[in-house]
Amino acid sequence: MNLLCLNKGADRRLRGGHLWIYSNEVDVRKSPLKSFNPGEQVLVQTNQGKAMGVAMMNPQNLICGRMVNREAVPLDQALLQQRIRSAQALREQCFDKPFYRLVFGESDYLPGLVIDRFGDYFCVQTNTAGMDCLKAEVVDTLERLFSPKGILLKNDSSSREQEGLAKEVGVAAGVIPDRVELEENHTRFVTSLTSGQKTGWFYDHRTNRRDMQGLVKGKCVLDVFSYVGGWGIQALHAGAQDVVCVDSSQPALDMAAENAALNGLNEKFSAICGLTLDVLKTMVADKRQFDVVVLDPPAFVKKAKDKKKGEEAYHHHNQLALRLLKPEGLLISSSCSMHFKREELMNVIRVAGSQLNRELQVIHQGGQGLDHPVHPAIAETEYLKAMFVRVC
Amino acid sequence: MNLLCLNKGADRRLRGGHLWIYSNEVDVRKSPLKSFNPGEQVLVQTNQGKAMGVAMMNPQNLICGRMVNREAVPLDQALLQQRIRSAQALREQCFDKPFYRLVFGESDYLPGLVIDRFGDYFCVQTNTAGMDCLKAEVVDTLERLFSPKGILLKNDSSSREQEGLAKEVGVAAGVIPDRVELEENHTRFVTSLTSGQKTGWFYDHRTNRRDMQGLVKGKCVLDVFSYVGGWGIQALHAGAQDVVCVDSSQPALDMAAENAALNGLNEKFSAICGLTLDVLKTMVADKRQFDVVVLDPPAFVKKAKDKKKGEEAYHHHNQLALRLLKPEGLLISSSCSMHFKREELMNVIRVAGSQLNRELQVIHQGGQGLDHPVHPAIAETEYLKAMFVRVC
Repeated sequence: MNLLCLNKGADRRLRGGHLWIYSNEVDVRKSPLKSFNPGEQVLVQTNQGKAMGVAMMNPQNLICGRMVNREAVPLDQALLQQRIRSAQALREQCFDKPFYRLVFGESDYLPGLVIDRFGDYFCVQTNTAGMDCLKAEVVDTLERLFSPKGILLKNDSSSREQEGLAKEVGVAAGVIPDRVELEENHTRFVTSLTSGQKTGWFYDHRTNRRDMQGLVKGKCVLDVFSYVGGWGIQALHAGAQDVVCVDSSQPALDMAAENAALNGLNEKFSAICGLTLDVLKTMVADKRQFDVVVLDPPAFVKKAKDKKKGEEAYHHHNQLALRLLKPEGLLISSSCSMHFKREELMNVIRVAGSQLNRELQVIHQGGQGLDHPVHPAIAETEYLKAMFVRVC
Repeated sequence: MNLLCLNKGADRRLRGGHLWIYSNEVDVRKSPLKSFNPGEQVLVQTNQGKAMGVAMMNPQNLICGRMVNREAVPLDQALLQQRIRSAQALREQCFDKPFYRLVFGESDYLPGLVIDRFGDYFCVQTNTAGMDCLKAEVVDTLERLFSPKGILLKNDSSSREQEGLAKEVGVAAGVIPDRVELEENHTRFVTSLTSGQKTGWFYDHRTNRRDMQGLVKGKCVLDVFSYVGGWGIQALHAGAQDVVCVDSSQPALDMAAENAALNGLNEKFSAICGLTLDVLKTMVADKRQFDVVVLDPPAFVKKAKDKKKGEEAYHHHNQLALRLLKPEGLLISSSCSMHFKREELMNVIRVAGSQLNRELQVIHQGGQGLDHPVHPAIAETEYLKAMFVRVC
């Protein structure tokens, strides 16, 4: 392995548990960035020559290195298998059934790797140059550990561009059917790994959806940005009186309807296809009222520079949602924008409430499910917020 | 009602939903603080003479006013009853059984009032001068709404001093037995309202204890600062192999043993009485190892000025706890210090982990239970954190 030499003091954050090396932390006289190939594994040294372990390189990214081992041993198939086994042990401790995010990148000490499991089917993303070089080893390890029926490489994430990687989606092993099944909080679903959003399902909201289930019995629920019905159908499963799913994608709503039927709940299900703000405004004009409104939008703040515009989008949606709530109703408002913090979401909701003269109580604040651990040194691994707000 | 006139601009925070008025926000020329009696209800006006509603006064506290109504109607028995009914409606929506915090002060729009319910018994704290003046009305309202067997006024909190109120504990209605029963997450407990800590039970950790239950089957658990066994006995109920409770209070541990027996789990229960740091150090020296360690200390940072010392206490306890964990073990580390933020607790744990060369995964971050809502405009209403940390 080639040597990467850090600037003086640049080892400090790594010692504190962080895994990333920024390009301005490299002593480029001793180890010019140009000398490294994307994806290459290197030995990392402090400026004093002390070994720090092994990192995967991508000289063209601002985050030019990601630690994969504190020992001087590269991430090879043996170590990959050990890490995936440890990740699996956590998921098996947490969940009864084989439907979960098996690997969540840095948080599972496998930078850039995401694996979602749907029983015998696996959906894999290799989002960094380093991990992309290990695609074959990842597929091989999954085959050894799980004998899967199919492995999909769903490499179409926007983060690949930053890494200089082409987008590519393809079946890496076995067969991937049009629909795969999964179960979450005792509710059955089908989704599509190939044509669905991201890996096909958002396991990260599992705990929040479970916590919603305890609060919706007999209630009329509005599920905004419903996708294939993750929230709405689980609300029905938990005894909600009815649910209206709103999404801009008709195929997603068709699958939500299919999921309602799969659970024998189609009579309580309805759907509206349209732009969410338009649909919500029409509902306000029509004086529609709900007991529970779920807002689960895509990231309105994708990058730090989108902050102002994104904050406005959160504000508009939350204010409309509050206007649709009966007295003592419940707003479940979430944000998956890593650049939009918990306090900021709370503040948006507070402002919307005060503008409408409604008193608010935040009865619960949820985050990422157990299969999306936060790395305590890497703030970027924490992104999901779900505020449960009672409106008086 | 007398008039309280605010300084120019001082109404802004109140318009944003906040309920507190600080003494330096009062136009003391128009409405001298000395002219108000502790506990008096006043009409609040902006500097331009616009009505803001009604506040309860305590001229001797830095927080000299707390809004109780946005309308020009004082908090009387009728309004008190309406607010308590609304608070009850939330709890009944959330919980099957009558064991919960019925009223959580500002968050239930009843500043200074805390009521914990134990079936037919109620434990009440009136922590502000304003609410203390309404003691009789609170007791009366509880009698009307719940026909309780007993109401205890547990007015021994330190916040009363700040308000110039004497400490006083006494039975306000009916009879309070030596032990009251409660149920939390399907586990039975007894506790003492009169001699126990605070109101006798910490309902605020209910959701966190439930979430612990999903992770302890077959595990050896250490419950540090166990009090009467809230965590430990619930771990046993969820199938833990055994639990060791550690506390500095022998009476608390005796009651924990009683609670173990109450659930038929006494054979798996043991207790160690002593100072927690001493007990943990001895266990480290003895090379004891656990699958799960729960740390639920009292507030180490009671006031902002205790920050440094308190942070050290959190650090020592968390580091010792990490040393007692087997590979892939789970640390559940909590803090109820309002002045010690979530990020600060996370950082203490991160540092302790890096010092021990152990990789950490924060798999869950819990907060206050549903009966302890956060007021979105009042940061002080949010205080409880519970970090679930897997140690590799």
